[in-house]
Amino acid sequence: MALIVMKFGGTSVATVERIKNVARHIKREIDAGNQVAAVVSAMSGVTNQLVAYVREASLLHDAREYDAVVASGEQVTAGILAICLQAIGVQARSWQGWQVPILTDNAHGAARIKDIDGTRLRERLLGGEVAVVTGFQGIEPGRQRLATLGRGGSDTSAVALAIALKADLCDIYTDVDGIYTTDPRIVPKARRLSKVSYEEMLEMASLGSKVLQTRSVELAMVYKMRTRVLSSFTAPDAMKPTTPETWDEVGTIVCSEDEIVEQQVVSGIAFAKDEAKVTLLKIADKPGVAAAVFGPLAEANVNVDMIVQNLSSDGKHTDMTFTVQGTELPRALELLKGVQKEIGYFAVNSSADVVKVSVIGVGMRSHAGVAAMMFKALAAKGINILAITTSEIKISVLIDAAYSELAVRTLHSLYGLDKE
Amino acid sequence: MALIVMKFGGTSVATVERIKNVARHIKREIDAGNQVAAVVSAMSGVTNQLVAYVREASLLHDAREYDAVVASGEQVTAGILAICLQAIGVQARSWQGWQVPILTDNAHGAARIKDIDGTRLRERLLGGEVAVVTGFQGIEPGRQRLATLGRGGSDTSAVALAIALKADLCDIYTDVDGIYTTDPRIVPKARRLSKVSYEEMLEMASLGSKVLQTRSVELAMVYKMRTRVLSSFTAPDAMKPTTPETWDEVGTIVCSEDEIVEQQVVSGIAFAKDEAKVTLLKIADKPGVAAAVFGPLAEANVNVDMIVQNLSSDGKHTDMTFTVQGTELPRALELLKGVQKEIGYFAVNSSADVVKVSVIGVGMRSHAGVAAMMFKALAAKGINILAITTSEIKISVLIDAAYSELAVRTLHSLYGLDKE
Repeated sequence: MALIVMKFGGTSVATVERIKNVARHIKREIDAGNQVAAVVSAMSGVTNQLVAYVREASLLHDAREYDAVVASGEQVTAGILAICLQAIGVQARSWQGWQVPILTDNAHGAARIKDIDGTRLRERLLGGEVAVVTGFQGIEPGRQRLATLGRGGSDTSAVALAIALKADLCDIYTDVDGIYTTDPRIVPKARRLSKVSYEEMLEMASLGSKVLQTRSVELAMVYKMRTRVLSSFTAPDAMKPTTPETWDEVGTIVCSEDEIVEQQVVSGIAFAKDEAKVTLLKIADKPGVAAAVFGPLAEANVNVDMIVQNLSSDGKHTDMTFTVQGTELPRALELLKGVQKEIGYFAVNSSADVVKVSVIGVGMRSHAGVAAMMFKALAAKGINILAITTSEIKISVLIDAAYSELAVRTLHSLYGLDKE
Repeated sequence: MALIVMKFGGTSVATVERIKNVARHIKREIDAGNQVAAVVSAMSGVTNQLVAYVREASLLHDAREYDAVVASGEQVTAGILAICLQAIGVQARSWQGWQVPILTDNAHGAARIKDIDGTRLRERLLGGEVAVVTGFQGIEPGRQRLATLGRGGSDTSAVALAIALKADLCDIYTDVDGIYTTDPRIVPKARRLSKVSYEEMLEMASLGSKVLQTRSVELAMVYKMRTRVLSSFTAPDAMKPTTPETWDEVGTIVCSEDEIVEQQVVSGIAFAKDEAKVTLLKIADKPGVAAAVFGPLAEANVNVDMIVQNLSSDGKHTDMTFTVQGTELPRALELLKGVQKEIGYFAVNSSADVVKVSVIGVGMRSHAGVAAMMFKALAAKGINILAITTSEIKISVLIDAAYSELAVRTLHSLYGLDKE
């Protein structure tokens, strides 16, 4: 018998028919004697509609009112799921964030959960009742106004609730059946990982994997909450009830490194297409020039990722290359134009035709030569590396977009990730 | 300077564009120094969609969950209206029923308001802030679960809030510009009434006028809350700000009889088309037969309205005619078939081709001969009366549907209600 938090995202609850399917997933666990708290998102499309209303009302708007409006979507799903559960003989009640209560800070629209009082919920769970909790929201310290966590916040709600309830497992049901070594649409030989460490998952999330919200992984890591990613589209009867003995049989468990017995050196290959490269030609090679370039960008909230500065050939000038998000390229170029005089560069080149390919693995910490192996393999395929960044458990390279598929497939084979 | 509650129904807030229009109506009052609490319905169509979701989930459902789902509609409108007000420089905040709080009883889905604590709202109103309150909902005595008042409940929310805040006036903005002597689509000479008494309004509401919810009129009557019906589709600038001197210049005020100086004998002609007539032929003319007929109907919640029993010709048998709502006719016939043996009637006739025409006016109390005048005028036009019911301030007749327009126009002229 286990206490499980089961979270269902927008596509899993997009229609009443799908919510009925979700109810059957929950019934499977209740019938097996597990205790279940469910966390739900708004039906897919609803939050976008509500945000559109708010924007039509006024582009500049009171974040407290924005929260009051958009929090309503989850309220609807929670009530409907409770009804669907009751209809198949499972005791259930819906809980809005303020009813639990889930206490947040005052940062309306992007609030952080401060505390969850799970006392009343736990009592009900013990009696076999399913608590259906609205994701993405809580109530601010004054207990007057609703607060939302920002888009994708329901993953965080689920993990935070699992921590508060001391759950055995936080199951994130979504439209994919787990975390893969890379995108299976690009590499058919991609394998589902049965386990991945929090650190690796964090890198994958920040490198473009949209399966889990970054903040939820951070939270799970701090409190060591075992978090599993699995598909709500698998038939509810085709899955075994969750027990500590079987819970690594489906999906991917995000957990501590030390729970992963056979750790690969590299766990996955990520790639991000929404990168753009900017090169400043012939800028002065002197102290303070980096600050002059990146100061204005930072002030304008343009995130800079990879930075490469060439060696100076004449000791006076150099070229500097860096990457920004593709959507922010026009704004970055505009900003740089405005400060050309102060920085004193000759010209600026840019291209959105680049891709960042990353290999990720906690095994790198103890294995030397992973990077060298990577560079060698890419060179052998004639792929030019435009920039490099590394962390303790990740190596990223920037390459021409035309080579992205070749690079990913090459690296996937290179580190032994291919199926069979 | 006055304290006004302004209520806006579903069609008045159907789109963000219309909500902006509503904001301008409110701004007009605030700019004139009035204090305003606004009560809003869900955007038109939203509540129906939410009810449809609930029904799709399960036809038999927990009323508490139904309430949690359908209460979300008003929440959205309230937040958006607050944003629209702020955008045109009017201080505002949204209040959900539980935040005010509006306390109800436990009858989820059809709850009654027990108490409203207006303390915090009043403080804010004094500071010039508009309180935008969700209609149709409150929180049950345990302060745990949301409760809704039943369809159309926002009128009641508005009147109850006006009473709690000791408002000078409760303005119900809707899609018509007031209460008319009869439906202007049938009788072009129909006049807008500048005042109508609570009692007359109650009769009109129960006789088919859908402008105000019956319960809201009852409440207004008990607490003598002056309630005005007016159109939100009149351009906001085309209306004067509300002052005690001018508030009878637009719309219709529902108020105490004694506020109406020039009381007409008859104030209005109502007609209801959704009536059906049932005649039981040759039933026994003995004590207990009425109970035998109407008992089963009452148990099955079929409301019976007019009843006529013919004089017996042979001292043993008689015919009995009564009316039910048109939509309930099939069910009524089914029920009567089931108890034919016990009642012992010979046959049953029915027709949905009837209409109930009513003349309403508190002046009837002091004027004799109103009914006689009515019957004579209808007879002169060759209109046969199938059944009659009366109250202190109303006379209703059932006639063939074909004559409904003729009857309404005849009576409208007869009692001096025509324009000019």
